Amino acid sequence: MSPKVLIVMGSDSDCPVLEETAKILEQFAIPFEMRIASAHRSPRKTADLVEAAAGRGIQVIIAAAGLAAHLPGVVAAGTILPVIGVPMGGGPLNGVDALYAIVQMPAGIPVATTAIGRTGARNAALLAAQILALSDPTLSEKLLAFRERMACEIEEKDQKLQRRDK
Amino acid sequence: MSPKVLIVMGSDSDCPVLEETAKILEQFAIPFEMRIASAHRSPRKTADLVEAAAGRGIQVIIAAAGLAAHLPGVVAAGTILPVIGVPMGGGPLNGVDALYAIVQMPAGIPVATTAIGRTGARNAALLAAQILALSDPTLSEKLLAFRERMACEIEEKDQKLQRRDK
Amino acid sequence: MSPKVLIVMGSDSDCPVLEETAKILEQFAIPFEMRIASAHRSPRKTADLVEAAAGRGIQVIIAAAGLAAHLPGVVAAGTILPVIGVPMGGGPLNGVDALYAIVQMPAGIPVATTAIGRTGARNAALLAAQILALSDPTLSEKLLAFRERMACEIEEKDQKLQRRDK
Amino acid sequence: MSPKVLIVMGSDSDCPVLEETAKILEQFAIPFEMRIASAHRSPRKTADLVEAAAGRGIQVIIAAAGLAAHLPGVVAAGTILPVIGVPMGGGPLNGVDALYAIVQMPAGIPVATTAIGRTGARNAALLAAQILALSDPTLSEKLLAFRERMACEIEEKDQKLQRRDK
Amino acid sequence: MSPKVLIVMGSDSDCPVLEETAKILEQFAIPFEMRIASAHRSPRKTADLVEAAAGRGIQVIIAAAGLAAHLPGVVAAGTILPVIGVPMGGGPLNGVDALYAIVQMPAGIPVATTAIGRTGARNAALLAAQILALSDPTLSEKLLAFRERMACEIEEKDQKLQRRDK
Amino acid sequence: MSPKVLIVMGSDSDCPVLEETAKILEQFAIPFEMRIASAHRSPRKTADLVEAAAGRGIQVIIAAAGLAAHLPGVVAAGTILPVIGVPMGGGPLNGVDALYAIVQMPAGIPVATTAIGRTGARNAALLAAQILALSDPTLSEKLLAFRERMACEIEEKDQKLQRRDK
Amino acid sequence: MSPKVLIVMGSDSDCPVLEETAKILEQFAIPFEMRIASAHRSPRKTADLVEAAAGRGIQVIIAAAGLAAHLPGVVAAGTILPVIGVPMGGGPLNGVDALYAIVQMPAGIPVATTAIGRTGARNAALLAAQILALSDPTLSEKLLAFRERMACEIEEKDQKLQRRDK
Amino acid sequence: MSPKVLIVMGSDSDCPVLEETAKILEQFAIPFEMRIASAHRSPRKTADLVEAAAGRGIQVIIAAAGLAAHLPGVVAAGTILPVIGVPMGGGPLNGVDALYAIVQMPAGIPVATTAIGRTGARNAALLAAQILALSDPTLSEKLLAFRERMACEIEEKDQKLQRRDK
Repeated sequence: MSPKVLIVMGSDSDCPVLEETAKILEQFAIPFEMRIASAHRSPRKTADLVEAAAGRGIQVIIAAAGLAAHLPGVVAAGTILPVIGVPMGGGPLNGVDALYAIVQMPAGIPVATTAIGRTGARNAALLAAQILALSDPTLSEKLLAFRERMACEIEEKDQKLQRRDK
Repeated sequence: MSPKVLIVMGSDSDCPVLEETAKILEQFAIPFEMRIASAHRSPRKTADLVEAAAGRGIQVIIAAAGLAAHLPGVVAAGTILPVIGVPMGGGPLNGVDALYAIVQMPAGIPVATTAIGRTGARNAALLAAQILALSDPTLSEKLLAFRERMACEIEEKDQKLQRRDK
Repeated sequence: MSPKVLIVMGSDSDCPVLEETAKILEQFAIPFEMRIASAHRSPRKTADLVEAAAGRGIQVIIAAAGLAAHLPGVVAAGTILPVIGVPMGGGPLNGVDALYAIVQMPAGIPVATTAIGRTGARNAALLAAQILALSDPTLSEKLLAFRERMACEIEEKDQKLQRRDK
Repeated sequence: MSPKVLIVMGSDSDCPVLEETAKILEQFAIPFEMRIASAHRSPRKTADLVEAAAGRGIQVIIAAAGLAAHLPGVVAAGTILPVIGVPMGGGPLNGVDALYAIVQMPAGIPVATTAIGRTGARNAALLAAQILALSDPTLSEKLLAFRERMACEIEEKDQKLQRRDK
Repeated sequence: MSPKVLIVMGSDSDCPVLEETAKILEQFAIPFEMRIASAHRSPRKTADLVEAAAGRGIQVIIAAAGLAAHLPGVVAAGTILPVIGVPMGGGPLNGVDALYAIVQMPAGIPVATTAIGRTGARNAALLAAQILALSDPTLSEKLLAFRERMACEIEEKDQKLQRRDK
Repeated sequence: MSPKVLIVMGSDSDCPVLEETAKILEQFAIPFEMRIASAHRSPRKTADLVEAAAGRGIQVIIAAAGLAAHLPGVVAAGTILPVIGVPMGGGPLNGVDALYAIVQMPAGIPVATTAIGRTGARNAALLAAQILALSDPTLSEKLLAFRERMACEIEEKDQKLQRRDK
Repeated sequence: MSPKVLIVMGSDSDCPVLEETAKILEQFAIPFEMRIASAHRSPRKTADLVEAAAGRGIQVIIAAAGLAAHLPGVVAAGTILPVIGVPMGGGPLNGVDALYAIVQMPAGIPVATTAIGRTGARNAALLAAQILALSDPTLSEKLLAFRERMACEIEEKDQKLQRRDK
Repeated sequence: MSPKVLIVMGSDSDCPVLEETAKILEQFAIPFEMRIASAHRSPRKTADLVEAAAGRGIQVIIAAAGLAAHLPGVVAAGTILPVIGVPMGGGPLNGVDALYAIVQMPAGIPVATTAIGRTGARNAALLAAQILALSDPTLSEKLLAFRERMACEIEEKDQKLQRRDK
């Protein structure tokens, strides 16, 4: 099946974190493609990848980068598809640099920013799913079920805690 | 026409900033509704508003708040529609508190965060437009035209600067 | 004995830190209840828990959360009982995000915020005890004794240091 | 009527901000006393004031200070009454210094910290009211009415916005 | 004379600050060109400008941008000429976002970062002059004279202060 | 010999860091006393210790504390001896809280603040030595010798590096 | 009378703030000298000034600088006299850059750092006075009187507030 | 061959990080010299080293330091050669102190600042190479080849990832 979500990362060292994104997309049976392309080290490749995306049926792009994280913004500049940016943690500033470099995009080119690191990588997948669900009722139902499952898990953990306390 | 985007703000003092959001949505002829509802001062109203949104044809929710900005997260918890969060600046911490309170959402409930203040308010509208454009080719074309116009404006300003320098 | 303090945490991963809270409440023989309820993943459960609290004899609520820590504020919005918020550390921003998301509550809905992490978890219990002591002379005496014991411990450690230095 | 809340500020320059606290306490008909006493410039006076507080019927102390804001912690060290700390903004660090110096109290001596500046000054009064309401059903009702009024105000502002938009 | 330094800014609003850069380059009689080109709003124009730079005799590029300041990094990715990045102040984060987005460039593509705002704009010109002076002895002498003049100015101000104090 | 420097720490957990202070004072043969006294947990003991200091021949006080580090300021409020404050690192904020709580002392009561942690603990001893050396020529000579030794060590390390590189 | 305190500032723009230092030294009749010398723009002058200081009877040096504030550290490297560093506020980072550049001195060369801006400028004078008072009983008495006056002022302001409230 | 780049570090503990700089310079066959010299502990040696640099054929100086990192600025004050500053990470503030103390240089004396730690150490070498390449066509070609190799590596990693995913 042709991919609906394109995951781009600036370096293969970001791969373990973005596996979290991939896992959730798989869970929702959303076809995706995972690519390495750097805003700085391979700008042309990045531009080509992004320009071709819409034509290939991609509907949402998830871009992750650390430090002076330009990748999500550079990707967003090359497409009108919604772009989700994930700031990578690690590095001496713990991802605050990446967060600012992604979320503070100047007016005109938005990037939908999620939390730093693993948490953001997971939520990027869910945000992509929520966007795709706008035109996919089956996916909507899966998302509603996912939400209910989360509430149940909290309930179970709470009951387990109650039992333990007794 | 029934609204496709719901703009929610925690306080009427945020109104002038969110006018920027409204102006851009109008420019793209996207019908929207602007509401005041607080995560803390009117939690029930907020919950009702959010729960009813999908049924009324809302496709994207833009939520803006300042300080310990819970509104976008609380809205996101009540719907599977994509929620865009705009951290309001102002206050003693210049919006860093609002940014952290919106972007650092825990895994499970994503909020698509934009820049602090006016810049983010504008980009929230554009992000909403980009999401809606996935199923609206006319809107896609408008967005492409908007991008070209931005590039032209830069070009014109650059040429003006060149002439001045001579 | 029916609980006077309700401890709510957003995730069971916060449990080890909140054991510190529990230990101190036990030390002061204050009956308490420990619950897991998320502002985002189980908002209805949280609302129900909080609304029922006053009726069940709860007098103080301690709410702990990390990252974009909305739980204490959401709890405070649902009750007029005093709510103590504990920002959880951990995560890439070391709890500064949680601190801002709890302490910067907008006017109208106060949250009594304590320090980040374990230190705050302990002080939340003591603050709850100090509030309850306003109408419980026995508890007042226990608190005064606790204060004296702390001063004695400092004294003992100081004397031990003096002996070592000789 | 003898005061139930003691408001202490480190400098008379904090007075305009703490008028916000006073105004809300008056609104709830809570008798209070407003004093100037510095942790550094008049430590003895501060100690005397705090030690005498409980005996005079004070039930909650609100302490406000800026910069290296030691007053709330120093007050808290001298009493087992609940102490609410308000970090004053202003100064080159916009109150982050005061926030850290108040909220990061070491284990043993809690300070219930509110938001920086005016917002925190207002919430300090409400928190004091919520604590006093535990043993004062009339105050409880006033607080519930205050919450409803806030929700109504939001509602009115929202309706006004709806009318304007039409 | 063909320009040796290319000044690129992301927006014409940065112009007043970069006039400081221009003024110093003029003072050293270094021919320069000032252009507006955005990393996000006119990425192609930016790429073309940068690619052509070396061929046109440009030796140093100064790039200035604010917020999520990608321009210097994007310029640096497109050339092996030394690129000096100036973080623009202003905005809610006072230029810390721009500083991080410029200075924290990942390994492989360096950007020589200067101070935030006007100070950095001036130093960018001096740094460019120092680089060009490596192969231009006249410029070296001008720089040495500039340094001596600065020392003299300090001396004069110091003597003026001494006279005043007497 | 009666102590000339009083080292006060808020908790025995700070002891290992302050051993660095002690080691340097010993190296300069400056008699000192090391005490544990908390601004919050044993305020009276702290006050007594500080008030008695000048009478016992103490000339400089070094006070170290972490988190909302009030000890140095509280000590400084009780004496006109010069007080050196050392912010302890550790804790979720890595000592920035302690730094702000010590260095941002309001006008009237100065605290001579050094770097966070071990570095500051060492420099506190040297600063005390430099103050005492004002009336102790032997100590002056020791300090000059110490400075020369530092320069020599750099020289030796540099030469070692040169040899290695060949 | 020959100066006992040397005030050095990096730029004449710091003069208004350091007038606060001068005013307090005058109040205590401590002879001082005020000089402009830059660590970067006139390093030789700075070195000469510092080296000559001890020989001229200077006992304490107060050095103030903003931005990447190297002056206090560079001064401290050239003398064993106690050096007090005052971080200047202003600039895009509000003096946090100056604070870090002064207080975080590496082990070996201490700088006694005070608060950012005017507050620090005042406390630098008082700290100098406290150091000089170690060998000047008249100055000690003046400092004790100053402290009492401060306590009295607080008392008067407090009484004025009490009268107003009645 | 006589060195063209001088690497100065304030402490031998910075050596492992600066090996990264050395390795890249070697890779480009740029002769360099690595020296230890402290702005504070051996200011004279530092001044001598810097003053002699230009005469010995040095064209670029790379200076690295941590904490209140004055070395790059002090070096820059003593030469008109381009100076590249590398903020060392480590320490309680993770290098933010070093970054501010290097990048925020006041107008007149520029320091070309790179990223914190290892990343910055690598980019300092590349920046030096790019500066030297202005008058060295062979080096230019090496740099272009290096850029292409980086792009290829990204390509290879991307293809490897594609194969894995299949």
